[in-house]
Amino acid sequence: MEPLNPEFATETRRVFDQAPFIRALGAELIRFAPGRCSTRIVLEAQHLQQDGFVHAGVQATLADHTAGTAAATLMAAGKRVLTAEFKINLLRPAQGHSLECEAVVLKPGRNLTIAEAEVFAVGVERKLVAKAMVTLAVT
Amino acid sequence: MEPLNPEFATETRRVFDQAPFIRALGAELIRFAPGRCSTRIVLEAQHLQQDGFVHAGVQATLADHTAGTAAATLMAAGKRVLTAEFKINLLRPAQGHSLECEAVVLKPGRNLTIAEAEVFAVGVERKLVAKAMVTLAVT
Amino acid sequence: MEPLNPEFATETRRVFDQAPFIRALGAELIRFAPGRCSTRIVLEAQHLQQDGFVHAGVQATLADHTAGTAAATLMAAGKRVLTAEFKINLLRPAQGHSLECEAVVLKPGRNLTIAEAEVFAVGVERKLVAKAMVTLAVT
Amino acid sequence: MEPLNPEFATETRRVFDQAPFIRALGAELIRFAPGRCSTRIVLEAQHLQQDGFVHAGVQATLADHTAGTAAATLMAAGKRVLTAEFKINLLRPAQGHSLECEAVVLKPGRNLTIAEAEVFAVGVERKLVAKAMVTLAVT
Repeated sequence: MEPLNPEFATETRRVFDQAPFIRALGAELIRFAPGRCSTRIVLEAQHLQQDGFVHAGVQATLADHTAGTAAATLMAAGKRVLTAEFKINLLRPAQGHSLECEAVVLKPGRNLTIAEAEVFAVGVERKLVAKAMVTLAVT
Repeated sequence: MEPLNPEFATETRRVFDQAPFIRALGAELIRFAPGRCSTRIVLEAQHLQQDGFVHAGVQATLADHTAGTAAATLMAAGKRVLTAEFKINLLRPAQGHSLECEAVVLKPGRNLTIAEAEVFAVGVERKLVAKAMVTLAVT
Repeated sequence: MEPLNPEFATETRRVFDQAPFIRALGAELIRFAPGRCSTRIVLEAQHLQQDGFVHAGVQATLADHTAGTAAATLMAAGKRVLTAEFKINLLRPAQGHSLECEAVVLKPGRNLTIAEAEVFAVGVERKLVAKAMVTLAVT
Repeated sequence: MEPLNPEFATETRRVFDQAPFIRALGAELIRFAPGRCSTRIVLEAQHLQQDGFVHAGVQATLADHTAGTAAATLMAAGKRVLTAEFKINLLRPAQGHSLECEAVVLKPGRNLTIAEAEVFAVGVERKLVAKAMVTLAVT
């Protein structure tokens, strides 16, 4: 996919780095390219739910934000993305030392961009634990 | 709806209070009854995204967990809930001093329970900002 | 909610009546008002899946189209709706002599309108069998 | 993926061929293998919505049923699948002479199987027009 904004890397980093909730979560931007983004969270006790698994909200936040960042790579200058809706399937209980997320834009658009994101739990193995589809409004 | 577990209040409080990510988020359990749950977050800077609105992940986490807690009120003794999937529509940018969430079980079941959750942003007004449908696996 | 188009009833009826797939399905427009729509299908053998229940696709089509028709009541003159995405939970196997659907707009918008739709199976009883959330693009 | 039922092809064909709504839609089973299924609809006027595009309900039905058939390939003898919920993004208006659908199981399970399905419109080009995630209850 082709970036519309030659300065897309600046806006992409802003979307990721300037979001306080993402910093509080400890998520890191690993790499991005037009239409794609990869991120990671090193897991800590604060990320868990009541039975010791990674909370669905952590996986959802990472999936949503990584998808939004992938979408941001394709925005024209001055345009921003805001999540309109998303759906996530939690495929298996998530445990491990970190989560990794890979997002890709399925369809860029002038008003709506659709992206999907896969979340992997990394421990002894790397397993797909969640998959999300995200609709982003372009504003 | 009828609780299957006379001690349902104990398990309901456990689901809410023992989830580290929910404590980190600052979410509070306001009240619950069989098939229903209400919660709240007093908003702080850590809950925002890059443009000053409440992050979709905060709204999603609150919706998911409130729905899960509503489902927990109806579990038989020894049964637990785990989110299988959810979908959330973010209806408008969320701002204010707090978020409130109301969840209700649409359909309890032996293997799956379906709940919906509405999220309101409270500032000068109280506005519906998000609505989620959550499918919970009973394990 | 307030209609933007004084001729909204004409466009609403067009959306419902001019869709060949809706006619093939046998769906009927029961009533509508700004932001709301009710429809019905008298069930026949053609609406079933392999085990004798109403096919999820029938319920999904009715929910989507009823939601779209509810959204159409609020369109400005010359504006049309197109489904961007929807999610539907099938709450229980659907059987009976007819399906009824009630849709309501949760949030009208200039670019996106969000509606929800409930599907009821009517036999000896009237039971909620499915609930959908639908995001419509305004074009 | 490994089939649990050596006679899986028989049950897979039953799921596809014995569903009256799928026959009414004119959908054809193209091929399947454990965890996968491909289908097609030759488009006719009956498949359209009010503005000449393929109705979202046609795309949703094909995506849901192809995903369900992919899931059926992995069922143990005597087990059946029933859609618990699905979500579909309609990525662009769909037009052409036929729709093709490819579904793959993301996660098989004892109680729940999750599959995704891509729908392509085939005309001068073959374009991805919709993508669905489907949760199937195993009964």
